[in-house]
Amino acid sequence: MKKIAVFTSGGDSPGMNACVRAVVRTAIFKGLEVYGIYRGYEGMIENDIKRMYTYSVSNIVQRGGTILKSARSTEFRTPEGRKKAYENLKAHGIEGLVAIGGDGTFTGAKIFYEEFGIPVVGCPGTIDNDIYGTDYTIGFDTAVNTALDAIDKIRDTAAAHDRIFFIEVMGRDAGFIAVESGIGSGAEFVMVPETATDLDAVVKSLKNLRKTKTSSIIVVAEGDDEGSAEVIMNKVKDKIKDKKKEFKVTTLGHIQRGGNPTARDRVLASRCGMAAVEGLLEGKFACMAGIMNQEVVYTPFGDCIGKEKPLIQDHLKLIEYLSI
Amino acid sequence: MKKIAVFTSGGDSPGMNACVRAVVRTAIFKGLEVYGIYRGYEGMIENDIKRMYTYSVSNIVQRGGTILKSARSTEFRTPEGRKKAYENLKAHGIEGLVAIGGDGTFTGAKIFYEEFGIPVVGCPGTIDNDIYGTDYTIGFDTAVNTALDAIDKIRDTAAAHDRIFFIEVMGRDAGFIAVESGIGSGAEFVMVPETATDLDAVVKSLKNLRKTKTSSIIVVAEGDDEGSAEVIMNKVKDKIKDKKKEFKVTTLGHIQRGGNPTARDRVLASRCGMAAVEGLLEGKFACMAGIMNQEVVYTPFGDCIGKEKPLIQDHLKLIEYLSI
Amino acid sequence: MKKIAVFTSGGDSPGMNACVRAVVRTAIFKGLEVYGIYRGYEGMIENDIKRMYTYSVSNIVQRGGTILKSARSTEFRTPEGRKKAYENLKAHGIEGLVAIGGDGTFTGAKIFYEEFGIPVVGCPGTIDNDIYGTDYTIGFDTAVNTALDAIDKIRDTAAAHDRIFFIEVMGRDAGFIAVESGIGSGAEFVMVPETATDLDAVVKSLKNLRKTKTSSIIVVAEGDDEGSAEVIMNKVKDKIKDKKKEFKVTTLGHIQRGGNPTARDRVLASRCGMAAVEGLLEGKFACMAGIMNQEVVYTPFGDCIGKEKPLIQDHLKLIEYLSI
Amino acid sequence: MKKIAVFTSGGDSPGMNACVRAVVRTAIFKGLEVYGIYRGYEGMIENDIKRMYTYSVSNIVQRGGTILKSARSTEFRTPEGRKKAYENLKAHGIEGLVAIGGDGTFTGAKIFYEEFGIPVVGCPGTIDNDIYGTDYTIGFDTAVNTALDAIDKIRDTAAAHDRIFFIEVMGRDAGFIAVESGIGSGAEFVMVPETATDLDAVVKSLKNLRKTKTSSIIVVAEGDDEGSAEVIMNKVKDKIKDKKKEFKVTTLGHIQRGGNPTARDRVLASRCGMAAVEGLLEGKFACMAGIMNQEVVYTPFGDCIGKEKPLIQDHLKLIEYLSI
Repeated sequence: MKKIAVFTSGGDSPGMNACVRAVVRTAIFKGLEVYGIYRGYEGMIENDIKRMYTYSVSNIVQRGGTILKSARSTEFRTPEGRKKAYENLKAHGIEGLVAIGGDGTFTGAKIFYEEFGIPVVGCPGTIDNDIYGTDYTIGFDTAVNTALDAIDKIRDTAAAHDRIFFIEVMGRDAGFIAVESGIGSGAEFVMVPETATDLDAVVKSLKNLRKTKTSSIIVVAEGDDEGSAEVIMNKVKDKIKDKKKEFKVTTLGHIQRGGNPTARDRVLASRCGMAAVEGLLEGKFACMAGIMNQEVVYTPFGDCIGKEKPLIQDHLKLIEYLSI
Repeated sequence: MKKIAVFTSGGDSPGMNACVRAVVRTAIFKGLEVYGIYRGYEGMIENDIKRMYTYSVSNIVQRGGTILKSARSTEFRTPEGRKKAYENLKAHGIEGLVAIGGDGTFTGAKIFYEEFGIPVVGCPGTIDNDIYGTDYTIGFDTAVNTALDAIDKIRDTAAAHDRIFFIEVMGRDAGFIAVESGIGSGAEFVMVPETATDLDAVVKSLKNLRKTKTSSIIVVAEGDDEGSAEVIMNKVKDKIKDKKKEFKVTTLGHIQRGGNPTARDRVLASRCGMAAVEGLLEGKFACMAGIMNQEVVYTPFGDCIGKEKPLIQDHLKLIEYLSI
Repeated sequence: MKKIAVFTSGGDSPGMNACVRAVVRTAIFKGLEVYGIYRGYEGMIENDIKRMYTYSVSNIVQRGGTILKSARSTEFRTPEGRKKAYENLKAHGIEGLVAIGGDGTFTGAKIFYEEFGIPVVGCPGTIDNDIYGTDYTIGFDTAVNTALDAIDKIRDTAAAHDRIFFIEVMGRDAGFIAVESGIGSGAEFVMVPETATDLDAVVKSLKNLRKTKTSSIIVVAEGDDEGSAEVIMNKVKDKIKDKKKEFKVTTLGHIQRGGNPTARDRVLASRCGMAAVEGLLEGKFACMAGIMNQEVVYTPFGDCIGKEKPLIQDHLKLIEYLSI
Repeated sequence: MKKIAVFTSGGDSPGMNACVRAVVRTAIFKGLEVYGIYRGYEGMIENDIKRMYTYSVSNIVQRGGTILKSARSTEFRTPEGRKKAYENLKAHGIEGLVAIGGDGTFTGAKIFYEEFGIPVVGCPGTIDNDIYGTDYTIGFDTAVNTALDAIDKIRDTAAAHDRIFFIEVMGRDAGFIAVESGIGSGAEFVMVPETATDLDAVVKSLKNLRKTKTSSIIVVAEGDDEGSAEVIMNKVKDKIKDKKKEFKVTTLGHIQRGGNPTARDRVLASRCGMAAVEGLLEGKFACMAGIMNQEVVYTPFGDCIGKEKPLIQDHLKLIEYLSI
């Protein structure tokens, strides 16, 4: 293998740049030529591909977003689109790919590999942490800290006014951000897609709060079965029927995707990037380079996409115990 | 004057604790007894009043929220409510008040002073910066920095996806937060209540963006004449009719009220708190202690409430010039 | 077991408060009475022990430092001191202890258990991450992020002036903070106690830096074999003999011990605290509750103190590969 | 005037990039051609000058350091050096300059203007705030917040161990950073070059601290008349002679020069940059564009350099009153 390319795809996450940097520099360190593909599969189809050098990734390890940009490509879902993409790679002489992204990215990479035999190793880049085959995904730690920092701020004003706050964090299918930011902020309740939400229990609990509680924080993952934070707040309000209690809702939104990556995300991203290049050179194709139990692990794309990654049970217990 | 009391009222703002600390310690330094009234006028009516000592305000200068809590009191709007409040103060022997808050707080204080002759000096505690008689209000600088930090994060993800983001910041009647966070973040447009928003100009501009612009940020004060950020986004989207352009909206919400105060807010809060106590001792009643042109200025409550505080014209020009 | 006590000892670390909170609330949740011992072993000897309630630990999960304070006790190193400590615990009816700290704390706890048979479970509270039996220690993640944030700032000014900066981070015997902050900041070199530092290689490398490198960052753990950052800088300067190159040194110092704990530290601290109480109730004495591979693990104090925790080899490789 | 150039010189400060951006975009908005001179006067002499476009300053408003780099030039102090610099400017057709920097920068600009008649307007870029003609300098607010954030962290660990901390902040000739970070952090004492430091008073005070004080923070400007923080700590330690008291010292160093600029610094920098270009076009030569009392003010370089900027007296009083 002499030439490889790297791209970022799907929703961006903090640490993607650190990962791109690691891929580029490891490749050059190993004597490879390396290219950057812009806007993911879209750029692969449109031949938006540029040679990258050591200095191309200078001063980006600490930056949010992705210098390679990201996009969702509908054309790549068609055989014609993928054919075009393949022709472009071939024209450049690119023999291997590093794909940084999540579920959708890996699904595309798997099909692409099966159709054209082009080796791909993935890196888990998503804030949601919902990828099997790695303890944490790149961007998750930053997103949790951003959410936590926001909740800390809201706790200040909630306490000043004795209010009940419903805070919606990201997580359409996975409650990881909600659970860790909930534990970290000392939230009274956390509502996640993985478990059935019992609003009556919440209502009962809010009615019986000890007097020394000056405020309540309820963290809601956007994909909760009872609806969005706003919907849930209104349901709870209706059930509590206490005009003295003040309810507020905040949806944290896209701030959770940006920001300078944390130390943990930069180290994880760097290590996954290095491992992806090493994996390509060792013949590990159509799999993802993740970190489990502090070691690099290569997991076939099929498992990354298909297997479920459960919440840590102790974490749910922590919320119950510590919010008394 | 031997005994004074301090309270916080209305929406809380970062730096209120630093102000309370300054009032308490300056009072003690000057040989006064000092009391804290909890939950603003509500606590004054309910006699929720406690003696404060030097150590009562230890380790709070850096904290958001207010240890004295805040509330909005409907009872204080009635003569009966105010009578009760006065009786409580009298029973404690309290001869002077420091009121930390905004418009509503000062309106109440003015009436209270007129009815019962109890000296009150105010400190401008609100994130909105919409109080005449001080260059900046306590909490404004922190709120702007919080908004800015959030917009910086959103810029990362906006740039990664070439998106157009509408970001709503606080400011029902005043555009100060929008303008300063807009300049600071390099926003393409800022929409504020003080000026008529011209959506057609925005649409025209967004259509003709130079190619090197990878994203657009539009900061909207919540009180803009064209509606909320979401409403405005939908109007713009309808007018642009370009399916390739991606539009997103984020409402920053209550994170803008919390957080550790910035250096500027802590210094301002400390100075206003000291000046309020000195003002009481010098016979300056029914006025607010603010800082203008680096000097302490006492402004009658009537002016603080009644006079308009205009945006800085240069700031509006900056947004126009620098977003090219 | 009906009554337990918790204390913090040795150098403080961010997250200790979150751990104290978890111990107190888990204990109460499980029906125990719980006490706080102030200033570690010193307070145990001086009987500085207070009952703790659910609300005693409200609003501390996000705070640096330790509300129980910490101290190093010389008296506890004597049999008489330990006897006094034991008598005080006995008088309170305290039957179990949770000790939050590092090496020294656990050494004391081990002897105390051996002499008086009082059950103790430890929680790993130290920024250095040098405790065997847990993947990470409480406070390490915060310390790394603080160091990283400082190095990011220094990189700004280093780049503006094309300077070579030597930055000393904490770590007398362990290079974990240096390595992770080095990877995270894209440092050119990292010098740690665990490996022999080759200054000639550094000098050679600095002389041959590619032209596009605008600055160099060298992270030095305080316990490096070649001396402090200042000593090393002077050695390198003497060897390079290039008057055009500007060398600077910064010692980050105690900022690394403070600050609001990160999400990771709050979650880790909470989980260790809960596990410590559960361990006591399950009869796990004279051991530490740590997290390895995402699971709670109880490790005998002897192993925590005696066994070495090696650096992750991949991390050293990352610094080499990625600084080209 | 058709062509102007901008450069940064002397010690860098956060916000310089925002200022460069404002100069470049205002110039283009006004129909001018604009050039960037790299490494200050050094680059002027070495002809390191490049045309700048709107996109040249994209995405830098939030960055610390300076994309134009900075340097101190000895050659520019010679008539020959300045001659070379002038010839280079002339060759490019550059008719006006914006100089971003402090005392030294303006001294050079003044001589250069006197010798060659080339119009120069300055912008006050230095963290020290020691420039007459502007209420605040660009970078000061960020430096104070960085210092404050560090002191907040140290306060955590100081309180946990009941320690006395001496913290050295930047300020060789001016105590502005020390005073504002001292007020903001609730420091017990602040020592600055502008006033004589009375160590005996400090010693007396430290001996008599009330029992509820758990720690003491003493902020020392690097240029204090009694020496560095370390020297002062040792003097105080010798005088106190209390082995129980623990003394520690931390020198914050270069972290104060870096970091993303605060909102205030970005707005100030943007406004000064715009005003500098407008000043050039209006024929305001050899002066600095600063902001006083919220208005743009142009002050002749001679005054900026020669007149003293005093500390705010109220600020010194605040430290005395509020540390009781």
